[in-house]
Amino acid sequence: MPTPRKTIAIDMDEVIADALSEHLLRYNRDFHPDPTTTPLTRADLHGRWLWDAVPPARLPDLERYMLSEDFFRVLPVMPDAQRVLRRLQSRYDIFIASAAMEVPSSFTAKYDWLAEHFPFIPTSHIVFCGDKSILRADFLIDDNPRQLRLFESSNDPNDTTAQPHREGILYTSPANVKLTGFRRVNNWLDVETLFLP
Amino acid sequence: MPTPRKTIAIDMDEVIADALSEHLLRYNRDFHPDPTTTPLTRADLHGRWLWDAVPPARLPDLERYMLSEDFFRVLPVMPDAQRVLRRLQSRYDIFIASAAMEVPSSFTAKYDWLAEHFPFIPTSHIVFCGDKSILRADFLIDDNPRQLRLFESSNDPNDTTAQPHREGILYTSPANVKLTGFRRVNNWLDVETLFLP
Repeated sequence: MPTPRKTIAIDMDEVIADALSEHLLRYNRDFHPDPTTTPLTRADLHGRWLWDAVPPARLPDLERYMLSEDFFRVLPVMPDAQRVLRRLQSRYDIFIASAAMEVPSSFTAKYDWLAEHFPFIPTSHIVFCGDKSILRADFLIDDNPRQLRLFESSNDPNDTTAQPHREGILYTSPANVKLTGFRRVNNWLDVETLFLP
Repeated sequence: MPTPRKTIAIDMDEVIADALSEHLLRYNRDFHPDPTTTPLTRADLHGRWLWDAVPPARLPDLERYMLSEDFFRVLPVMPDAQRVLRRLQSRYDIFIASAAMEVPSSFTAKYDWLAEHFPFIPTSHIVFCGDKSILRADFLIDDNPRQLRLFESSNDPNDTTAQPHREGILYTSPANVKLTGFRRVNNWLDVETLFLP
């Protein structure tokens, strides 16, 4: 009997979509319009989330950017994501799984963004969810350690059968660089090497 | 060690939301406005989907109803669904899982409908998906046999361990009354008896 194909679930923001760049762009446009001031950069976010790197008074601005209708529609695609995902599809069942329930106003923009940049992913393989423990997949590639823990939470530590366990794979973002405990990929070339050796 | 809570995924249309009634209402309003003609009723749908019960020329109208902005926002709630789901939450992890990707214009209406009628379901436990094989749950309650088969497809027939298998449970709708091969519930009182004996 042939081995069944493994399933890989793939997060959107900071994994295939570069939301952080768009956030920094809008933030610096509003708060560092003068080129003589120092803008906020990725280097400032080493080991912390964007939300922890701006003055508390500006948190509503970060949220306002995300809630604007076009935010998730204009995000740049992560380098090599399209080419590698297309290759992965030949050997794995691929699902895109975004925690879109956290920003319900993003549904349509995210759907349209996927249709434009990843037309080879069938819409039946798109999942908008909240808690990623609901995903039945062998792997989840995500930048958010909370979601990776939820995804792995249904692994039974007493299960000694050959049934393979679910593995969360951490996609590097500035906020998670110091984190340990997960296999890590730094970019899509790493994903390619890991799954298509 | 306490037994981990089982997870139940619950479909929306025809399980907690009465989309068929709204479809019949709009259809009869447009095509049987005269009370002397015979309207289309649930009895006409015995063993067939609505799409197979109307003249082909009227299929675009059925689609038009679904694509209208308010369709999924005004659906009646299935009797006893709220009370029983609230009770189930005390013993099970409950996720609402709709194949909303088939009608992307429905995202916001479905989200708002759940917020109104099922405010006790956290938004993190809502899933908009396509192919329900992606759901990690012990049970899926759905009226659509295709989704139940997809959900059960990852069961390994050679697996003889105690690891419990995933079970699709068929929620009765006029279209599926003749179908066998799944445990069946006819209404939410049946669900209550099955899971909270």
